[in-house]
Amino acid sequence: MNAVVTIKDVANELGVHPSTVSRALDPAKRSLVGKDVVQRVIETAERLGYTPDAAAATLRRGRSKLIGVIVPDIANPVFSPIIGGLENALAEVGYALIVADQPSDAKSRLDIIETLVARRVDGLVLATAALRDDAVERCIRRGVPVVLVNRAEESDRAPSVVSDDVEGMMLAVQHLISLGHQRIVHLAGPKALSTGSLRRKGFKSAMKAAGLAVKRHAIIESTAFTRAAGALAAAELLKRNPDATAIVAANDLLALGAYEALAREGRRCPEDISIVGHNDMPLVDMVSPALTTIRISHREMGEEAGRLLVALINGQETSGSRIVMRPSLIVRQSTAQTLN
Amino acid sequence: MNAVVTIKDVANELGVHPSTVSRALDPAKRSLVGKDVVQRVIETAERLGYTPDAAAATLRRGRSKLIGVIVPDIANPVFSPIIGGLENALAEVGYALIVADQPSDAKSRLDIIETLVARRVDGLVLATAALRDDAVERCIRRGVPVVLVNRAEESDRAPSVVSDDVEGMMLAVQHLISLGHQRIVHLAGPKALSTGSLRRKGFKSAMKAAGLAVKRHAIIESTAFTRAAGALAAAELLKRNPDATAIVAANDLLALGAYEALAREGRRCPEDISIVGHNDMPLVDMVSPALTTIRISHREMGEEAGRLLVALINGQETSGSRIVMRPSLIVRQSTAQTLN
Repeated sequence: MNAVVTIKDVANELGVHPSTVSRALDPAKRSLVGKDVVQRVIETAERLGYTPDAAAATLRRGRSKLIGVIVPDIANPVFSPIIGGLENALAEVGYALIVADQPSDAKSRLDIIETLVARRVDGLVLATAALRDDAVERCIRRGVPVVLVNRAEESDRAPSVVSDDVEGMMLAVQHLISLGHQRIVHLAGPKALSTGSLRRKGFKSAMKAAGLAVKRHAIIESTAFTRAAGALAAAELLKRNPDATAIVAANDLLALGAYEALAREGRRCPEDISIVGHNDMPLVDMVSPALTTIRISHREMGEEAGRLLVALINGQETSGSRIVMRPSLIVRQSTAQTLN
Repeated sequence: MNAVVTIKDVANELGVHPSTVSRALDPAKRSLVGKDVVQRVIETAERLGYTPDAAAATLRRGRSKLIGVIVPDIANPVFSPIIGGLENALAEVGYALIVADQPSDAKSRLDIIETLVARRVDGLVLATAALRDDAVERCIRRGVPVVLVNRAEESDRAPSVVSDDVEGMMLAVQHLISLGHQRIVHLAGPKALSTGSLRRKGFKSAMKAAGLAVKRHAIIESTAFTRAAGALAAAELLKRNPDATAIVAANDLLALGAYEALAREGRRCPEDISIVGHNDMPLVDMVSPALTTIRISHREMGEEAGRLLVALINGQETSGSRIVMRPSLIVRQSTAQTLN
């Protein structure tokens, strides 16, 4: 084996101080050194075959420059832009992202936190938070910086970046009312998640603000944010509310499930029933009919969460902060003037 | 600060040998120890507050149990199932996944390899390979185990897991011929990528096998695998081939771009022109018309790539292996019997 090339070797070759080489090779500190120096250091390091030893640096500094992110389901396209935004914001300051799927049982959910802590991650981003979340509890107890994204806890013990779910539902309901709808029902998401519970709350507030009644069975809860669960709950919703003219779904996948339920009954969207989704996930502009929905800037959300976590790691005061992004209404073909 | 709890402390508490504790806490070696012992070790470790120190273990063993994966675009839903499959196969044997986006310039593409090598990743998975790829070259030179997924190089110097792109195009062309089409054109992907070049090759072979001519402008290449690039290239394809009755697109996003190009010209799919995609990405079953496409099992592809990489890391002979997954035809509403 060849002798290992060190920072000192690179510094000697260039006739500069080792700390200059070290700074030039660290994306977070590079700006402290002149551009031409950075260029020369990188070239020389490459020529000599220097590889910074991140594992040794982790022990030395007590920092791994690794961030763990846990998502409910990596394979779900909704989370891709969040991960993209996180990666973007974190790579800029030299952090890499360990991505993990949330295990399905509660015990393994805590194990995955321990596994990431054992890897000395500098912080965690959870896109998985329940309203009262054991994983958040564990992070706080362990002293691991944690930021929640997309879903928040009921309390603000960990900082979070979320969309204004209540405002989003206001936009959806007001849009339907402007089209003449009054018998509006809600295809709700799971109550244990902030997105499910806040959108349900937003639906009720919006209906109340418009002076419209929410009847006994006008809200049916899906067991999960999936198309299949949405189709099941939508069928129940249609059965209980045969005269409804519009459905506000708690997310796009639920709305697409409602498309299936409608088709099975031979009812048309938007001629018979208008449908509004939530998220504006990829391709819902191309489904038939193109889905009217509430757009959430998932990429920006991921970027904000990344920046917030870095601030937290650097000891800046962020506790209790909840960054709320404003959603917007995207009108497409799944909503229309009501005829009844 | 409290004294750090070590494996020895856990072993003493239980009256077992430290190596037993070590095995019980390592998902890859856990099966060597009895189930009840594993349970007791985990409980005791948790109670005493033991955290395995992955950074120290990395230095000790020279292994980080980290795998780097580089994808063309994290935010693109096509890659979500590949990442999901990889994570699934790797988590089983105790590896975690660092996910990175491919930088847009060639220089930074090599930098990201160096960054991951500096983190002592045990191996890399590239979903980004060009037909001749500098990053693969760099990995081989550095002695870093590398597996390619979805796209392969022209040569087999690194093992890869890909779909049978030629076979996929055979299925697409034969389906159209069975519907009476003869004037079939190809909306191609970038030639520098194996998916682009092999699907083009497959298109030509399939046409030849059926005794059909491929005219001079019957293949137009998109600059990228995106909807926008697909719409542009499809417009050109339609202009050059006004009598074409069917388009075979090199992937689903290109096919959706072709939908847009057709709509702009007031031509209907499938009444005027049939379209076949490639990938069966999420939601193409719900676009209008629902897309006939070639299904690739991206999740299984990711799982295979993960297993192949672990074999490579463990020193098993895998060089030159190319695992080719069989695609299948999914017939939906975008293809129909031709009337001309």
